[in-house]
Amino acid sequence: MSFTLDFEPLGIRLLCEEPLTLLEAAHQAGIHLRSECGGKGTCAKCQVQILKGSVPPLKELELKTFTAAQIDLGFRLACRTIVGSDAELYLPAQSLLSDQVLQTEGSIQEFHVDPVVKVSSITLTPPTFTDLQPDWERVQTALSQQGIGNLSASLPVLSLISIQLRKSGWNINLIHNETEILNAHPPENFAPIGLAVDVGSTKIACFLMDLRSGRTLSVRGIANPQIAFSEDIMSRLGAVLENPANAMALQQGVMQSIQSAVDEMCSKLGIPIEHVVDACLVGNTAMHHLFLGLPTQALAMSPFVPSTGSELYPSADELGLQLMPGARAYAPPVIAGFVGSDHLAFLLAAGFGEDQHTRLGIDIGTNTEIALQHAGRIVSVSTASGPAFEGAHIRFGMRAAPGAIEHVNIDEKGIAHCQVIGSQPASGICGSGILDAVAELRRTHLINNRGRLEKSSPIIGTNTEGKPVFVLVPETANQREISMDQKDIDQILLAKGAIRAGIDILMDYLHVQISGIDEIVIAGAFGSYTNPEQAVRIGLLPDVPMQRIHAVGNAAGVGARMLLASKKMRLQALELAHKIEYLELTIYPDFDLFFANGIKF
Amino acid sequence: MSFTLDFEPLGIRLLCEEPLTLLEAAHQAGIHLRSECGGKGTCAKCQVQILKGSVPPLKELELKTFTAAQIDLGFRLACRTIVGSDAELYLPAQSLLSDQVLQTEGSIQEFHVDPVVKVSSITLTPPTFTDLQPDWERVQTALSQQGIGNLSASLPVLSLISIQLRKSGWNINLIHNETEILNAHPPENFAPIGLAVDVGSTKIACFLMDLRSGRTLSVRGIANPQIAFSEDIMSRLGAVLENPANAMALQQGVMQSIQSAVDEMCSKLGIPIEHVVDACLVGNTAMHHLFLGLPTQALAMSPFVPSTGSELYPSADELGLQLMPGARAYAPPVIAGFVGSDHLAFLLAAGFGEDQHTRLGIDIGTNTEIALQHAGRIVSVSTASGPAFEGAHIRFGMRAAPGAIEHVNIDEKGIAHCQVIGSQPASGICGSGILDAVAELRRTHLINNRGRLEKSSPIIGTNTEGKPVFVLVPETANQREISMDQKDIDQILLAKGAIRAGIDILMDYLHVQISGIDEIVIAGAFGSYTNPEQAVRIGLLPDVPMQRIHAVGNAAGVGARMLLASKKMRLQALELAHKIEYLELTIYPDFDLFFANGIKF
Repeated sequence: MSFTLDFEPLGIRLLCEEPLTLLEAAHQAGIHLRSECGGKGTCAKCQVQILKGSVPPLKELELKTFTAAQIDLGFRLACRTIVGSDAELYLPAQSLLSDQVLQTEGSIQEFHVDPVVKVSSITLTPPTFTDLQPDWERVQTALSQQGIGNLSASLPVLSLISIQLRKSGWNINLIHNETEILNAHPPENFAPIGLAVDVGSTKIACFLMDLRSGRTLSVRGIANPQIAFSEDIMSRLGAVLENPANAMALQQGVMQSIQSAVDEMCSKLGIPIEHVVDACLVGNTAMHHLFLGLPTQALAMSPFVPSTGSELYPSADELGLQLMPGARAYAPPVIAGFVGSDHLAFLLAAGFGEDQHTRLGIDIGTNTEIALQHAGRIVSVSTASGPAFEGAHIRFGMRAAPGAIEHVNIDEKGIAHCQVIGSQPASGICGSGILDAVAELRRTHLINNRGRLEKSSPIIGTNTEGKPVFVLVPETANQREISMDQKDIDQILLAKGAIRAGIDILMDYLHVQISGIDEIVIAGAFGSYTNPEQAVRIGLLPDVPMQRIHAVGNAAGVGARMLLASKKMRLQALELAHKIEYLELTIYPDFDLFFANGIKF
Repeated sequence: MSFTLDFEPLGIRLLCEEPLTLLEAAHQAGIHLRSECGGKGTCAKCQVQILKGSVPPLKELELKTFTAAQIDLGFRLACRTIVGSDAELYLPAQSLLSDQVLQTEGSIQEFHVDPVVKVSSITLTPPTFTDLQPDWERVQTALSQQGIGNLSASLPVLSLISIQLRKSGWNINLIHNETEILNAHPPENFAPIGLAVDVGSTKIACFLMDLRSGRTLSVRGIANPQIAFSEDIMSRLGAVLENPANAMALQQGVMQSIQSAVDEMCSKLGIPIEHVVDACLVGNTAMHHLFLGLPTQALAMSPFVPSTGSELYPSADELGLQLMPGARAYAPPVIAGFVGSDHLAFLLAAGFGEDQHTRLGIDIGTNTEIALQHAGRIVSVSTASGPAFEGAHIRFGMRAAPGAIEHVNIDEKGIAHCQVIGSQPASGICGSGILDAVAELRRTHLINNRGRLEKSSPIIGTNTEGKPVFVLVPETANQREISMDQKDIDQILLAKGAIRAGIDILMDYLHVQISGIDEIVIAGAFGSYTNPEQAVRIGLLPDVPMQRIHAVGNAAGVGARMLLASKKMRLQALELAHKIEYLELTIYPDFDLFFANGIKF
């Protein structure tokens, strides 16, 4: 009786034949779980979370290790837990050896920390019969003496101010943004905390930030629970078209996941959730509309128009987030139906709009957003590249995580030499490895210029169905065979074609020559692991000198944190959003020709 | 076994000796209930509402007459309902003969109708691939072409706009104020309606207004349900001090009463409640804080400071009012702890701040607010005059309503000639009658210059307790005896002393001589029925030529309607609120002397 184990957030699937401990299973899947005691159950480092599936009751040792809340969340020790049926597991970052942690960090640039939400301390002279100014006007007078003017306050906040003033001897801390007082606290010192979230369609990255120092305090990457509806965005939007009530389920699911992540991070850091005074949420336009509760019907139908392209400041409460009472969330603007605020955050983090360089920015995903800055203009496109470069729809595909083949070299004998993330047996192949493999197959003429595997070559084998395959890693005692077939290659070529067509159209539109490109910035895990030479070789990227190609990691997450912590960045984002021109690829003259050219080598 | 019946909103109390129908009881109390069938139960005109007390079960006839909702509210037919114990009754306006309806109207001046909430119709070109502006920005562009700029919208309204635009062919009506879009409608013509409310501590006056014409469509005077807590405001504030949860009960009670009145008026006029797009609520500062849910603790304690003196625009929803979804309520500013937005509305309606006349404005109540405009300044005071002029704490006192003695003349033989409102047997005596009676008793030397009844005069009789009384109306077959005793007179003198002290201090403060007063404006029912000569004779008012004294009726209600329907008036109210100086009487030099002088004749 075989069963499968899914290890998240790595995206690795393991087929098992007989019951085993989760620690053993992780090893088989090539995952390096921490286990300092060697599986004796004494170090308590191999903590995992059971997301789905049934496992035996907790051992006494585990009852001692975990809090009631952790037990509720499904925490177990991998070395003590035997599985014998399908299960989905989450591996917390702290349980993985440090080199195995999924990339949630991008390189955060230097930026001026100037948070929008501030704490202002005021001390008032109490009213007397000869000084009868009402409470709120008394507060406003004190604030204006600090150069803070024209703030509004809701009825609950007005009430709180009157009550708190009298409780704490006419001395209070006001938590406010530039237009509104959000809350009133006793005059105690406290460090305001902010929450930045990059809501991806598969993964949600949450960051807690100290708003005084701009330091990231904690990071959590969690799975987007909307995956339960469907993996791809258009199907989720379709579910809402069929039944508008689904919108609420999709909205609440995301917010509950974010809330759990925030609660957990706060709890670990010993920070009261009431100290989280601000939040910044970015995402693609569908995610943005879904998490804000805006209608998505128009995003599912041509011409794919967003409900709004303005920045929004909803209350955290109306989104279903319990942070500091009165807190607001900031949702930066989206650009178009398929160019969201994550793209804006990426461009901001990559320095778009700040200089005059001719710069290409690419964020590869199921939809790949591409921006080209040239001669004072910034034009963005979105292209439906499919999930191949994320390892999906590829038989042995997986995300860029330990156990993934990240680089492939094929020698003159046609033998593949694979470099695996984490130097361990290979579990699968990630985007950069897939790209390498295709580039090498082409270089060695094992695929022809139309992208077909050369059946005639003795190096190309056949699978059980008689279809041609190229074996990357042969089967051994503790290694399953990993290979690529024509379907895998076709997926890559389609994805490459869509992305390259987007790049070429942008260059055509802005009259940019390849030699004129000063910089290519690639966001996301794909960019971090990809060999730029191979990307150029297969024609995914234009042929520019290698030193002009830069990977910036999770740049949307970086941008979200910059936007969280800096008023100047929010103003810059607004300017950038107004500046970015969206170009609709599908109506561009000769789009089909660009696409056909893009697929070719 | 005697029991008492209280008839609201007339404020008449009847002492009964044996069980009787409510129709009989009303007749005994001098109240003209409609009864076209003569008490046979067939016309169903004598509807009354049981507020407190127990009555026998509903008759079959009544079950047929009333809806379930009416039965829940305690509706009964007066001719079919026998009472034998204490009860409190409410007489709906439609059950009273027309001349008996309480005064809710004041004379509304000419003013420019320019409502803050407007309906703007826009027609958009639908988006295409070559024109991909998001919905909200497309709406803003269309609005700016109509000269309407910079409006905000909540997430629900943004959603509604996107959905409504597509439902009604890119042609919608936007309901908005000057800063925010409140709602989006299909492009059908509809007349926006407004609600003005004067929340008095005993009575709430509700007005429905056509916001296009400024015409008052309907008026309802209802009892303030907070009376169930206590009659006077300080006790209500005390109840909140004891248990803050009472604040919510007091808030919700008022809002539910207003909601019922609005629902009923809308239903009678055939207006959907969704067409009520705006509301303006005024009241004294305690009422204002209670209906807004602001803390009242500081209003119950020296130095009696309001929580805020700013104008507020809470959502109708957060107040507990169900009007058009998205509607906001406007609460004009209050001036001080005992000078509320009803005073501001009165001054606005009486033309304060608009000219250079030396003008005295007086609104007589349990607290009497007085304002003096002189030489570019306006100064207001509040004086605790007690409820004597409203007929309370006077044995035969009642409000100025049919059956009340409104004027008294004493001839040379010492016989009182009484004029009764509605020319019917007298039920009691209202403020103006009480004032007349005291003035006449003084003129005829039946009370001396220290305000004592002259026991030695044969005209002064004695009551069952041997105390001196003056009989206004002797007992006859269908008329109970109505008289005044020393206690009644003392109440009047204390009230008069408090009010006159306020007037004199204002005149002293602003250096105004009696001869310099151009106009005295008196608000409320008391002013409408009062003989100004008598008011001057007893020294309540300064001795100015009679043509300078004007009664303006329910001026706060008039002001509330002007504020509801005119943006200019709201700006004027803000200016006026900033201009008004509040003067605290109790710390004014020689306040006691002013008060002692005020009591004298």
